[in-house]
Amino acid sequence: MEDVVGAEVTIRRATSRDVEAIVQLLMDDDLGAQRDSLDDLAPYFEAFAAIDRDANQLLVVMEREGAVIGTQQLTLLPGLSYKGATRMQIEAVRVASSERGGGLGTQLIEWAIDYARERGCLMVQLTSNSARVDAHRFYRRLGFEQSHAGFKLKLT
Amino acid sequence: MEDVVGAEVTIRRATSRDVEAIVQLLMDDDLGAQRDSLDDLAPYFEAFAAIDRDANQLLVVMEREGAVIGTQQLTLLPGLSYKGATRMQIEAVRVASSERGGGLGTQLIEWAIDYARERGCLMVQLTSNSARVDAHRFYRRLGFEQSHAGFKLKLT
Repeated sequence: MEDVVGAEVTIRRATSRDVEAIVQLLMDDDLGAQRDSLDDLAPYFEAFAAIDRDANQLLVVMEREGAVIGTQQLTLLPGLSYKGATRMQIEAVRVASSERGGGLGTQLIEWAIDYARERGCLMVQLTSNSARVDAHRFYRRLGFEQSHAGFKLKLT
Repeated sequence: MEDVVGAEVTIRRATSRDVEAIVQLLMDDDLGAQRDSLDDLAPYFEAFAAIDRDANQLLVVMEREGAVIGTQQLTLLPGLSYKGATRMQIEAVRVASSERGGGLGTQLIEWAIDYARERGCLMVQLTSNSARVDAHRFYRRLGFEQSHAGFKLKLT
């Protein structure tokens, strides 16, 4: 569950010690800056515990010289369709803004795809906000097909 | 976990006795007909067991007079973003082709939204194949925002 990618970047399962750094990454983003906050970390630690005890969830960090510079959450989704296929869903992908454009995002997603293969998944899936047109290009370049419309309903 | 909707339609958690009927519903669809088959049910029963033992999964059937006429799979997704919010994802929504247009799909999705509220979810999310333009109208009418692009990568 720990892979050294290239000379210096490590990709591994997150621990509770990474929670604050992951929240900082979530906020280091045009959309995320409005959603998240470091004022009270308690709900994040609670959510981390729920993710960590679920065998179908894997919260991932990318690290260089002790600094967390990327994250993503991988979820295994068992299902009946496609003859009982398991899917893997990628959520909450972030690379530190200071580190973008250097191929780290590609390393992160390729790591996720390798993990999905190891776990016998038929498919990897994700959604990306319609505003993130650069991300859409990025995923298409990695071989993803932009075949679906993504719908969200906020409950209040 | 069992609700009688209207006079005659029941929505409830699926059991292993529903697996064959659910596969028939998955096949009763332009896209699903190419993906699924009743020739060998063993992989479906295996997948059912994986869904059934996972507390974050709920496979749902809609029933009338003992006949399964609809299905959907609901998944609770714990996550760090949005201050540690849990999302609910809807997958594999089907209403029998002979029963479409009568509001059963609305009842199914409204049941899912109620379940998400009960479980304290911040958001309900789903993707729909770009070819299903009628479904897109249906979800927008139910209050969903078509805010994301959905990407899939098949592993072979």
